[in-house]
Amino acid sequence: MIYISRDAHFCAAHKLYNEKWSKEKNEEVFGACANENWHGHNFDMTVTVKGRVDPETGFVMNFKDLNRIIKEEIHDKVDHKNLNLDVDFMKGKLASCENLVMEFWAILAPKIHEVTSGKASLHCIKLKETNKNYAEYYGE
Amino acid sequence: MIYISRDAHFCAAHKLYNEKWSKEKNEEVFGACANENWHGHNFDMTVTVKGRVDPETGFVMNFKDLNRIIKEEIHDKVDHKNLNLDVDFMKGKLASCENLVMEFWAILAPKIHEVTSGKASLHCIKLKETNKNYAEYYGE
Amino acid sequence: MIYISRDAHFCAAHKLYNEKWSKEKNEEVFGACANENWHGHNFDMTVTVKGRVDPETGFVMNFKDLNRIIKEEIHDKVDHKNLNLDVDFMKGKLASCENLVMEFWAILAPKIHEVTSGKASLHCIKLKETNKNYAEYYGE
Amino acid sequence: MIYISRDAHFCAAHKLYNEKWSKEKNEEVFGACANENWHGHNFDMTVTVKGRVDPETGFVMNFKDLNRIIKEEIHDKVDHKNLNLDVDFMKGKLASCENLVMEFWAILAPKIHEVTSGKASLHCIKLKETNKNYAEYYGE
Amino acid sequence: MIYISRDAHFCAAHKLYNEKWSKEKNEEVFGACANENWHGHNFDMTVTVKGRVDPETGFVMNFKDLNRIIKEEIHDKVDHKNLNLDVDFMKGKLASCENLVMEFWAILAPKIHEVTSGKASLHCIKLKETNKNYAEYYGE
Amino acid sequence: MIYISRDAHFCAAHKLYNEKWSKEKNEEVFGACANENWHGHNFDMTVTVKGRVDPETGFVMNFKDLNRIIKEEIHDKVDHKNLNLDVDFMKGKLASCENLVMEFWAILAPKIHEVTSGKASLHCIKLKETNKNYAEYYGE
Repeated sequence: MIYISRDAHFCAAHKLYNEKWSKEKNEEVFGACANENWHGHNFDMTVTVKGRVDPETGFVMNFKDLNRIIKEEIHDKVDHKNLNLDVDFMKGKLASCENLVMEFWAILAPKIHEVTSGKASLHCIKLKETNKNYAEYYGE
Repeated sequence: MIYISRDAHFCAAHKLYNEKWSKEKNEEVFGACANENWHGHNFDMTVTVKGRVDPETGFVMNFKDLNRIIKEEIHDKVDHKNLNLDVDFMKGKLASCENLVMEFWAILAPKIHEVTSGKASLHCIKLKETNKNYAEYYGE
Repeated sequence: MIYISRDAHFCAAHKLYNEKWSKEKNEEVFGACANENWHGHNFDMTVTVKGRVDPETGFVMNFKDLNRIIKEEIHDKVDHKNLNLDVDFMKGKLASCENLVMEFWAILAPKIHEVTSGKASLHCIKLKETNKNYAEYYGE
Repeated sequence: MIYISRDAHFCAAHKLYNEKWSKEKNEEVFGACANENWHGHNFDMTVTVKGRVDPETGFVMNFKDLNRIIKEEIHDKVDHKNLNLDVDFMKGKLASCENLVMEFWAILAPKIHEVTSGKASLHCIKLKETNKNYAEYYGE
Repeated sequence: MIYISRDAHFCAAHKLYNEKWSKEKNEEVFGACANENWHGHNFDMTVTVKGRVDPETGFVMNFKDLNRIIKEEIHDKVDHKNLNLDVDFMKGKLASCENLVMEFWAILAPKIHEVTSGKASLHCIKLKETNKNYAEYYGE
Repeated sequence: MIYISRDAHFCAAHKLYNEKWSKEKNEEVFGACANENWHGHNFDMTVTVKGRVDPETGFVMNFKDLNRIIKEEIHDKVDHKNLNLDVDFMKGKLASCENLVMEFWAILAPKIHEVTSGKASLHCIKLKETNKNYAEYYGE
């Protein structure tokens, strides 16, 4: 079993705000992240796929395919967007790093399975919000 | 003459949008950066100050003072903010990297002069919007 | 289960020196790291916590709390310090990366359990001494 | 159990080309990586070793020994080389990241066992081909 | 005057070899870089352009245009190529960082002048061959 | 005129302490940097040399020579050392970044002139103490 990883980057606006709470409680819990006028980040994303190496190609999965899937399924839907307002799969959810990686997983896992005919599978998604904070999800 | 530099980081939302233009023209010129619902970045800022070394301290300027000025005069006004909506000195201006560094200069240059009693002066402000794009200003 | 990570940095002096050995044996085993007058590093530390996502906050654990714990329990005790002389929990221990991460674990694990009421737990501490060397500990 | 890691870097040329296929099929599968005149990379390699901490040294394994093994067994055989033409253990194999980490494992695992008298063992080899692509192998 | 910079990356093979010299002299001067079977790098390139800020756009030059010029005029001609064999403008020249930045300058300077109608001009090209070595050229 | 740069790294202990002042004044001016038991850093140093390109080599100066000079004249005298106690050329001087780059200049400038027979000259020394602070010196 070999693990291959591909990085992607996107720039987006968001805020952390629970609509069921008062403005005061949001600011208490989320601090500056609750700013009603939004803030934003350069998000760094790493997608890790595992599988056996195909002796014909030396690949677990062609990086070109992995790159295309990440671009079409995630990057183009979140880059230069507002994660709370513009992204279908985040509607009604808190736009935290944790929720983002779980939603990304739900989209990428079946797609990677399909494109590789089940020979490779999604292993981990890592999402870095700043140089200091990140979340990782292994699908369970 | 020695040059010292201090880095700072802030996370903010913005859009590039000229209110005098149609939505179509904004999208043509600014592309995805014109998204009406905003996007955002982790901005990396480097402030460079020049001066002679004080033999008593070995310093051009105390890094603690430089850090405090950057934090109070810039960081706290832009971090976790919307650069178009929340920042007084950007009102009515396009929130491009170029305009940001020039506004930062106008704020920091006199402050650094004042705190160092004219012994040190601002040399350059560099502002990095993404890992690939940045702007620098030397005050003229 | 989601894993969240927070980075911290500290600057410290140390030496690798086993008091039970001769100076020659120390230099043979530890090389330049045994220099009696100390050397130092910018240490980069990553603390990873695991848990389920709270639907109210979208968080495994509030990054503000994690940040505060790391700062109060570790950073403020080791930053700009001598790891051999100034740090209580390293007294009588070799100040290697390996021993440091195990001591950090002993301090942070119960604290994270307490602050999150057992909803999240420490998963890994990574400590980077230079751009080339680091140690990781998973608690067992 | 503690995990220690050591980074190494090498610069090498390679191409991805399956000699059993036509030029067209190679270009279809490997894209620009199939360029017959080669291309190259700065490869970043991380070798992770696991074991218990020796109380006499505070070490899982002396970084000097780990560094020497990586240098002699891998670095000096691949740095400033053509991975397809100059490297004995890659002869007849596709010079993909995946195949490289598996070959590196076969060389380093017994050597680390030998030098540490079985007290430490190879845990992972990570090989980064570009800022965006990497492979990891855990030996099985 | 504001300076804006854009980064680009390419992966290429090359060797440093003066055809007028013996193999021995090439190895003496260029060391491992003279390996006849090539080696390669991930090159990091920074292109800096200077000019006044256009009040309509807030830009010295549209980053989209700068990006397109770098891609078409440089990146696509050198990425996944052999700098000695595949690149027209390097024919008969030593493929050192120094010569590369001077050739890149000769291509980019008139193109940037043309695309910006002379409002902006090329200021510097920086080319990084490894994490430790780079060259910069300011056009004279 | 082309500028070439070479990076080097060293790990050292130091403190900022003016012996003519009280302990209180040192702590007021230098803060935690005045800790009497030292602290330390991974210093990153960039040495930039300028000159014309030699058509025989494509080099301003052979990187091997530049590397050797930096190693012998600076790195080996400061790496894994105490900058206040172990380094001859820092005796009696405040071990600030500013003073370090000026002392490094005094050593490297004549050596580079000598080794290149005056064909290349030292242009800049940059010294980075942490990820946030650095000093640069251009020799005057």
